[in-house]
Amino acid sequence: MPVITLTTDFGLADWYVATMKAVLLRHCPQATLVDVTHLVPPGDVLAGSIVLERALRAFAAGTVHLAVIDPGVGSRRRPLVAEVEGQLLVAPDNGLLTWPWRRLGEGAAHEITWRPAEPLSDTFHGRDLFAPVAGMLAAGAPVATVARPLASPVLLDVDLATGTVGQVIHLDHFGNATTNLPAERLSRFRAPVAEVAGATLPVRRTYADVAPGQPLALVGSSGLIELAIRGGSAASGLGLDVGDRVALREV
Amino acid sequence: MPVITLTTDFGLADWYVATMKAVLLRHCPQATLVDVTHLVPPGDVLAGSIVLERALRAFAAGTVHLAVIDPGVGSRRRPLVAEVEGQLLVAPDNGLLTWPWRRLGEGAAHEITWRPAEPLSDTFHGRDLFAPVAGMLAAGAPVATVARPLASPVLLDVDLATGTVGQVIHLDHFGNATTNLPAERLSRFRAPVAEVAGATLPVRRTYADVAPGQPLALVGSSGLIELAIRGGSAASGLGLDVGDRVALREV
Amino acid sequence: MPVITLTTDFGLADWYVATMKAVLLRHCPQATLVDVTHLVPPGDVLAGSIVLERALRAFAAGTVHLAVIDPGVGSRRRPLVAEVEGQLLVAPDNGLLTWPWRRLGEGAAHEITWRPAEPLSDTFHGRDLFAPVAGMLAAGAPVATVARPLASPVLLDVDLATGTVGQVIHLDHFGNATTNLPAERLSRFRAPVAEVAGATLPVRRTYADVAPGQPLALVGSSGLIELAIRGGSAASGLGLDVGDRVALREV
Repeated sequence: MPVITLTTDFGLADWYVATMKAVLLRHCPQATLVDVTHLVPPGDVLAGSIVLERALRAFAAGTVHLAVIDPGVGSRRRPLVAEVEGQLLVAPDNGLLTWPWRRLGEGAAHEITWRPAEPLSDTFHGRDLFAPVAGMLAAGAPVATVARPLASPVLLDVDLATGTVGQVIHLDHFGNATTNLPAERLSRFRAPVAEVAGATLPVRRTYADVAPGQPLALVGSSGLIELAIRGGSAASGLGLDVGDRVALREV
Repeated sequence: MPVITLTTDFGLADWYVATMKAVLLRHCPQATLVDVTHLVPPGDVLAGSIVLERALRAFAAGTVHLAVIDPGVGSRRRPLVAEVEGQLLVAPDNGLLTWPWRRLGEGAAHEITWRPAEPLSDTFHGRDLFAPVAGMLAAGAPVATVARPLASPVLLDVDLATGTVGQVIHLDHFGNATTNLPAERLSRFRAPVAEVAGATLPVRRTYADVAPGQPLALVGSSGLIELAIRGGSAASGLGLDVGDRVALREV
Repeated sequence: MPVITLTTDFGLADWYVATMKAVLLRHCPQATLVDVTHLVPPGDVLAGSIVLERALRAFAAGTVHLAVIDPGVGSRRRPLVAEVEGQLLVAPDNGLLTWPWRRLGEGAAHEITWRPAEPLSDTFHGRDLFAPVAGMLAAGAPVATVARPLASPVLLDVDLATGTVGQVIHLDHFGNATTNLPAERLSRFRAPVAEVAGATLPVRRTYADVAPGQPLALVGSSGLIELAIRGGSAASGLGLDVGDRVALREV
């Protein structure tokens, strides 16, 4: 049973996502289609990249991930197929690959050479280029039939923190803030706390370890340190934003 | 064809729902996955419970319903499998079962005893515990292989109104307000009206029985009395909220 | 593999969509269900109609499209099945057919005569009438077994502009505005510009042909002229609304 996931900034109010699904089903009628999210902020390649790493980590080998956050559609940015841990990512080569590449290890990158018979539209490569390729790959086409090796895919300037000072890299629906500090950094302290936006947060095992309404830092399901407020939103409660500095220190 | 539905408060902007679907498809690749909603207000167990009753009423015997509104994740709340009308609900034992239990009749409750090989995460039992169990049950595993009988599941303090005075229990996307007054209560009156928030609403058969912009009470698709404004929102137009008193009386 | 799409104004916070999917799967368990959107503005038949044309254009012959934007539920509006380009649209006969009919060509319209065994609800024909019929059709039932020919389906008073002056007919998630001016109108000018809301927009091939933050007109993926702001929202940036006048002229 081939599985194809979809990650876009298309929103949920229009026909764009369904149009891509129509193309996917033409090429691979037996596919199970799974939406990751279509609410990536418009054009936010970093946010899309972080979502994709989570999707790749969750799904099984053989899954095809179609990702279209494509502010450069119609310009010269290359179309990409990347192999990461036995899965395939089909996306514009604009940095979406960054976080899967950094967190799951570099795989093999390819530039899509396949083109449709009719002229490519200037505004919707999701429908005309990425979805057909994703559908063909899910149906079993070898990567080499649609793409050629690509030496250096575009990568954003963001990575895991090397020390104990990092930054907020993502805010989720609950207002939890993911940082680029991996859980292992905590072992450098006997009783660590996290400093962010003028506040000092205790590091705890889970939400229920602090009183309702209280902030905490904890190891999130991503293996990264996250900042949260029990039963509330750290993003609004602490005024957090992507890029904010986060420092671990002894209590 | 096994069917698994999903009901959560995870929102649609993140990877959490897709992560659970990845787990479901690993355990039951042939499953049809149906989203009920992921927009239950964060941590709102009562709202989730009312949604679940509607889902259980709609689907066929054999359906597995995975519900994760889990503000107590990481604390001692028990994980639950309940059998109701030949369907299975997999959820935290925190009151989510309440409205299915009250409206569809008590079935059989079980505490999930299955645990993953790796240590359970402290923050995402949806992925690590509830989704694997839901997937195994959908693939045909007997309940007894993953759970043991549970005498008294947690139930919220909410039920059908016993008389002709009840309350608003849910507000939907259109701003329609569902009450806990069953349709049968109307038979106690020759010409019933509903009083709520200082307004008196005529009871009518359908929206088109009043002029556009006018409020009415009617029997909703749930078999409960609902309050609505034709072509508008009763929630905002009448200023309604969950818990508001609603009284039926003779005109 | 039968495919059924769903287009509604039900929103994503309630159980209504899942309830219809439960009915579809009872009638056609092997169907692939594809959401087009459930965020059509409540009761906005024109917006729904434009979405449906895009869905019909995208999907393959044999697809069944279930569309429920139904402000007249419970009144005398007829239930409809229409055949357009080898696909079937199941919807209330309230104008939803308009844009598919205008853009894809008139097909065959039918009034649904099938009724459920139990009395029809007054508020949710999506569940009780349209979904069962869509499911039966997807499972292979001939149209004639559930409907009879209908001479003149309801059509809204909106069409392609006949000259070079048209109007905004849709605003999407990105704030792009679709007009009713077909791409061919541009050939009447050597160097066309579009005037709307007091602004004059250059006509370009794609977003990247203007500087970030600058407005432009271009041929959208629908074959119609669209108004956009590169990296921004034309709807908010230019203050556009459905119905606004758009005129093409020589630069």
